Amino acid sequence: MATQLSRARAGEITAQMREVALDEGYTPEEIRKLVAQGLVVIPYNVHRSFHAVGIGQGLRTKVNANIGASGLRNLEEEELNKLEIAVQYGAESVMDLSTGGDLDEIREVIIGASPVMIGTVPIYEVATHLRVDEMDAEKLFTCIEKQAKQGVDFITVHCGITKKTVAILDSMPVPRLGGIVSRGGSLLAAYINATGQENPLYEQYDRLLEICFAHDVTLSLGDGLRPGAGFDANDAAQIAELMVLGELAERAREGGVQVMIEGPGHVPLNKIAEAVSMQKRICNGAPFYVLGPLVTDVAPGYDHITGAIGGAIAASEGVDFLCYVTPAEHLRLPDKQDVREGVVASKIAAHAGDLVKGVRGARAWDNAMSRARKALNWEAMYQLSLDPFKPRQYKEGSEAKTDTVCTMCGELCAVQTDNRRKKPH
Amino acid sequence: MATQLSRARAGEITAQMREVALDEGYTPEEIRKLVAQGLVVIPYNVHRSFHAVGIGQGLRTKVNANIGASGLRNLEEEELNKLEIAVQYGAESVMDLSTGGDLDEIREVIIGASPVMIGTVPIYEVATHLRVDEMDAEKLFTCIEKQAKQGVDFITVHCGITKKTVAILDSMPVPRLGGIVSRGGSLLAAYINATGQENPLYEQYDRLLEICFAHDVTLSLGDGLRPGAGFDANDAAQIAELMVLGELAERAREGGVQVMIEGPGHVPLNKIAEAVSMQKRICNGAPFYVLGPLVTDVAPGYDHITGAIGGAIAASEGVDFLCYVTPAEHLRLPDKQDVREGVVASKIAAHAGDLVKGVRGARAWDNAMSRARKALNWEAMYQLSLDPFKPRQYKEGSEAKTDTVCTMCGELCAVQTDNRRKKPH
Repeated sequence: MATQLSRARAGEITAQMREVALDEGYTPEEIRKLVAQGLVVIPYNVHRSFHAVGIGQGLRTKVNANIGASGLRNLEEEELNKLEIAVQYGAESVMDLSTGGDLDEIREVIIGASPVMIGTVPIYEVATHLRVDEMDAEKLFTCIEKQAKQGVDFITVHCGITKKTVAILDSMPVPRLGGIVSRGGSLLAAYINATGQENPLYEQYDRLLEICFAHDVTLSLGDGLRPGAGFDANDAAQIAELMVLGELAERAREGGVQVMIEGPGHVPLNKIAEAVSMQKRICNGAPFYVLGPLVTDVAPGYDHITGAIGGAIAASEGVDFLCYVTPAEHLRLPDKQDVREGVVASKIAAHAGDLVKGVRGARAWDNAMSRARKALNWEAMYQLSLDPFKPRQYKEGSEAKTDTVCTMCGELCAVQTDNRRKKPH
Repeated sequence: MATQLSRARAGEITAQMREVALDEGYTPEEIRKLVAQGLVVIPYNVHRSFHAVGIGQGLRTKVNANIGASGLRNLEEEELNKLEIAVQYGAESVMDLSTGGDLDEIREVIIGASPVMIGTVPIYEVATHLRVDEMDAEKLFTCIEKQAKQGVDFITVHCGITKKTVAILDSMPVPRLGGIVSRGGSLLAAYINATGQENPLYEQYDRLLEICFAHDVTLSLGDGLRPGAGFDANDAAQIAELMVLGELAERAREGGVQVMIEGPGHVPLNKIAEAVSMQKRICNGAPFYVLGPLVTDVAPGYDHITGAIGGAIAASEGVDFLCYVTPAEHLRLPDKQDVREGVVASKIAAHAGDLVKGVRGARAWDNAMSRARKALNWEAMYQLSLDPFKPRQYKEGSEAKTDTVCTMCGELCAVQTDNRRKKPH
């Protein structure tokens, strides 16, 4: 029994570290060191086999797409279609957040079909069968172990929801507008209040570590108290939870378990840098996985855009992993088109961040596109596009289907005018 | 003959200043002072009558939508539809950039139909009829005066394209990847190179000021040398032009002519703040009107998103006016759906910026949405949405049409769980 982390610490370079090194332009030894320090994780369950991807310092910012049926809409085929589309448009990770239908079967099918890492939130499964006051440690850990054996590569666990952090939330002098907006977080807070018991995922954290170590499941320590309103961003409750996650991250690393930290949420543009900076410091450089952040609350239907704004800034400040947000966020389960738009928006955000945090190869991609534009080489432009299909469809569906210029400017195309300009030398 | 600026300087509070004050939560005298200082402009041609809007320091960030036929696609009705949609989704300004069809007629119809300010780029009209070496000062100024008399509220003029700035562009030790990507800029640079003459808009700038003063046309000093590739951002050519614009802005103010400055373009995320800071300093606080900025080059088909990322950061840093970018940018003339998506994306960016630069009322809007979410009050959520139609369509088209919760989480809705949680006090 060993994990990427324990093997890295023992000086071993795994096949997965080699894959990551090749993809990212590092030497295998450089990747091994980053994994050993806990600055990079490679979520890769021992029961699975796929092309490994690293998440963390110095690497390309990765994108996760959430799929999964809900109690109100559960169609296995639809979820498999979403998986395919997410991967096609560049998601490096997919989380199965199903809460409806035959959960074990859906999970098994998704894991079997996925060429990328798979994450889950085990408490969702427990909560679909039980009222919060019926949950207990046995049921939670049994579920987690089952999913670990099924091959889940990383799990979100809201270990930072504790009697103390919930008490801090409930006694802040300025109460939140949004309360708790994390599903797992709200369930565990309700469990604590209903039973008077401590959160088992916190109290029996070592038991969690044992399961994760045995199957090399990467821990994604969830931010159950993330702000769900811009007004609530970076408040005492959120920071109290982050402090707990910092301690738990250190214990995970000591136990040889790979760990990353989840982050907000709804955050105004000028508070993103401090949120990232706090996480990196308090969690000693653990990879940071954020949802959004959404820089305004007033644009439902367009939260892939509010999230891309926040995600780009977050990535530029050091966030390593972006959870996509789709146009359906806050409104309904995303459909296939929402998945595509969400993935592309997050990939844009990730790359915009990579361009400025010095990720290897990021600038060369943009420069190649700029050269193709200057040459009015449309075929090269399509091929260099993050989504190669949509630009071709736009240009080829227009009146300038085969023209050198496009219908935006016609013969007044600035690039053409400038290319024809008589330059003095 | 007088302008909002000359009247403000004379201590007069105009009806337009009162409208702006009421909309923005200022006293009329505060607005008068800002206009007198040149920190706020109110584009409002003396021949027009509409609800006035101010652009500049301390005010909400405004959004412009470009419409207009091109030589390859010119349908008057389509352009009127775009005008209607742009205004419906919140554009405070529309530019008619037509370069095809009967330009005078299209412009007249658009001005007649528009409830918002109208801008143009007069050189486009000149260039649709003439080769660059056939243009001259007479033709340019005749066209500008005609448009001023027609009621155009602001014009983009690329006065900073001069023999000197073009020479700087052509002799940079590291050449640009994108060259000149401004239509007007490329035409004037080609004119300079083809004829050996100085740019008439620079050389006879006082003549321009006279026309603008007579009709109160606000000058929008165009950035003909804006970067069209992230690699080119903030280079010597761009800054050389900005220095010229700074001088010309001061001369406009001295002449009683309202003036704003246009800005880039393609700019990596970490270079936006310096671009804004330079403009504000060099142009003595003149309102800044930017296109995008696009934070990466590799996402054609999604440049409303790359532009929203840059626009939000720009607005937060002090940009006053965003020119929208649509999904069609770089590919074709936008259609109606592109216009809607472009306006909404830019409105998101503007508001995300307003939230952090302390614009009056911005935070209250988000907080109202957060309260509606917490109350699961869907009707209030729709009404508070930047685009009220799309979220309703998403929710009401889903299986949870009439449910309190949505299909994203079903009964595991975190807001519902948290609202039902037994809190200790």
